[in-house]
Amino acid sequence: MKAIGILGSTGSIGTQALEIISNNRQDFSIDYLYSNSNYRILYEQILNFSPQYACINNEESYNKLVQLMKGNSNTKIIFGVKESIDFISSRKIDLILNAIVGIDGLKPTIAAIDNNLDIALSNKESLVLAGKIVMDKANNNNVKIFPVDSEHSAIWQCLKGEEKADINRMILTASGGPFRTLDYKDFSNITIKDALNHPNWKMGNKITIDSATMMNKGFEVIETHWLFSIESKKIDIIVHPESIIHSMVEFKDKSIKAQIGTPDMKVPINYALNYPRHSSLDMPSLDFSTINKLTFEKPDLIKFKCIDLAYQALEHGGTSCAVLNIANDIAVNLFLSNKIRFIDIPSIIEKAIERHDHISSPSLEDIYYLMDWTNEYIKKEVNYANH
Amino acid sequence: MKAIGILGSTGSIGTQALEIISNNRQDFSIDYLYSNSNYRILYEQILNFSPQYACINNEESYNKLVQLMKGNSNTKIIFGVKESIDFISSRKIDLILNAIVGIDGLKPTIAAIDNNLDIALSNKESLVLAGKIVMDKANNNNVKIFPVDSEHSAIWQCLKGEEKADINRMILTASGGPFRTLDYKDFSNITIKDALNHPNWKMGNKITIDSATMMNKGFEVIETHWLFSIESKKIDIIVHPESIIHSMVEFKDKSIKAQIGTPDMKVPINYALNYPRHSSLDMPSLDFSTINKLTFEKPDLIKFKCIDLAYQALEHGGTSCAVLNIANDIAVNLFLSNKIRFIDIPSIIEKAIERHDHISSPSLEDIYYLMDWTNEYIKKEVNYANH
Repeated sequence: MKAIGILGSTGSIGTQALEIISNNRQDFSIDYLYSNSNYRILYEQILNFSPQYACINNEESYNKLVQLMKGNSNTKIIFGVKESIDFISSRKIDLILNAIVGIDGLKPTIAAIDNNLDIALSNKESLVLAGKIVMDKANNNNVKIFPVDSEHSAIWQCLKGEEKADINRMILTASGGPFRTLDYKDFSNITIKDALNHPNWKMGNKITIDSATMMNKGFEVIETHWLFSIESKKIDIIVHPESIIHSMVEFKDKSIKAQIGTPDMKVPINYALNYPRHSSLDMPSLDFSTINKLTFEKPDLIKFKCIDLAYQALEHGGTSCAVLNIANDIAVNLFLSNKIRFIDIPSIIEKAIERHDHISSPSLEDIYYLMDWTNEYIKKEVNYANH
Repeated sequence: MKAIGILGSTGSIGTQALEIISNNRQDFSIDYLYSNSNYRILYEQILNFSPQYACINNEESYNKLVQLMKGNSNTKIIFGVKESIDFISSRKIDLILNAIVGIDGLKPTIAAIDNNLDIALSNKESLVLAGKIVMDKANNNNVKIFPVDSEHSAIWQCLKGEEKADINRMILTASGGPFRTLDYKDFSNITIKDALNHPNWKMGNKITIDSATMMNKGFEVIETHWLFSIESKKIDIIVHPESIIHSMVEFKDKSIKAQIGTPDMKVPINYALNYPRHSSLDMPSLDFSTINKLTFEKPDLIKFKCIDLAYQALEHGGTSCAVLNIANDIAVNLFLSNKIRFIDIPSIIEKAIERHDHISSPSLEDIYYLMDWTNEYIKKEVNYANH
């Protein structure tokens, strides 16, 4: 039985992981759950899975959770960000699933590695913000990082049993998002509603916008680099609107292995939880005869400048990817609150990367400092532009 | 350095294998070559690769080869079928490539297994005629059989590092051949020229007809069963006219792995020669942006009755697959010599299977006996029908 901790247990990945675990209770015990503030769902999960501990960060949510739980559960509650991180740093379990969305996911990843825990990593920011620090620490501590999103899981599955020396390139597939076929001249008129309308995957708002700008794919290039220690020029992106091939690896003999399936996050979550086994999932087999066709096209780097920015940041190294990530978060929020246009997102990010004081071997502190700096810098820029 | 013997060295697979080896001379030494009668090409290969031995079966060819070789080579010549088989049974090498086309490939496979040699197997008939005998012997002698054709190589590549218990099904892709879109009512007018016009692969006449009837795919189902010891009901066929996905494996989590690439037999040959490594091949990477689309459809079992016959023979077991194979060989020859129509091929095979004296655990002798019986039986049937 695997003792598991789930960070971001009330989010989309967390709840799907718990659904898988609830169908395989003989294989897993939930040691702890962790949610920022969603006390209602966390309470239900506590009743359902009886974890040893539950972490919650928001004070109001904490108070409400304690009230709900009175006499109903033996689960011990950890309250507060610092307390939760300390808890992750010390509690021994078999596998931690980090499904926290956004920059807040980095500290728990570091805490887990420092505690020698293998990580099923859904949090993109851990590797985009601080890939070198995270992977160096993981390698030093012999900690394994199992990717959870569909593209990296696909590559990971294709690499099973293979030698690193035999790899020629990795090919990330991309749906192309809602604006794949939109003319570039119409990009200045893109509304929030347009951008939130993703053709294949149902996801949160932030990641849906990242998919619309294709920054999401840029981040995945950076994650691929760190997860599989492969140079950026050996990572290709191909737009594949049907999202049936989830990514591929080409070997030196030009043989390509691909991982294929209905778009469903349960597959990569289940694989990370059960690696190296393909443990049964109760879902229908893909019926190829119902697939109309699979198509492919080159990504348009004029329309989707964020892809180019990501490759450049990765090649530039140091703090460039961190600023890319931080600036993108801020820019997407500004777009979602109607303060900038969709086409301003890459411009703002590009400027922030250009203007920041580049450090080639940053510490975590350097990265945290850049969060404040980038925030201040963009606020000034946008205010200036709006006046 | 791997010492290799190549049976059928002057055929399509044999010459391609030697081309690969000539680019990787540091990895391989050619211990022997074996050709039925093509003394001219065999002579060139002897000069180029200086094998220790060369086997040739046809007497006239043998005499001409000896004349050509006088004073030009130290390669020793083995003459005659029995002598060549005896030689394979005793000569110790690291890997034998059996690229003999047709029923004649069975005895060399048995001889190699009896001699504990790992086999790169391109000869389909070894497994279709005598799958149980071949695999039982191979398992007893701990002999490994590496598939060489593109579909089984694809499955084998997808299975690397995986557990047998995690497999849900195997999916063989099929081009559908030249008659995929032809109406069934026009099948009675199919000419030899029509049937030899394969859309994707350039192959010999016999195998091109097998592809047109889709018996080829039926044989591959039988081979898949024996190579990967999987039940027939877990082997699916999907028609994929572009022949870019070479076959797939679905696991219990409904994750599918596929092997993809330009249709080129060098990839599976190279993989079998270099397994478990994907040793470099000098050919262009597949450019997905030039792929118009990949499509899929269910095979039409009315038009391609041979597929159904193969599944039935496999389920019936015993001598049924042997008669399927033998009767198909004869029927295809009759079609190619204009003695029967294209649509008569499956009917003749079906009748032969129905009429033969079924043996559930046949010996090799039983199978050899059936070669004569089926020949006689079909000759009588066809003569009767033509008078």
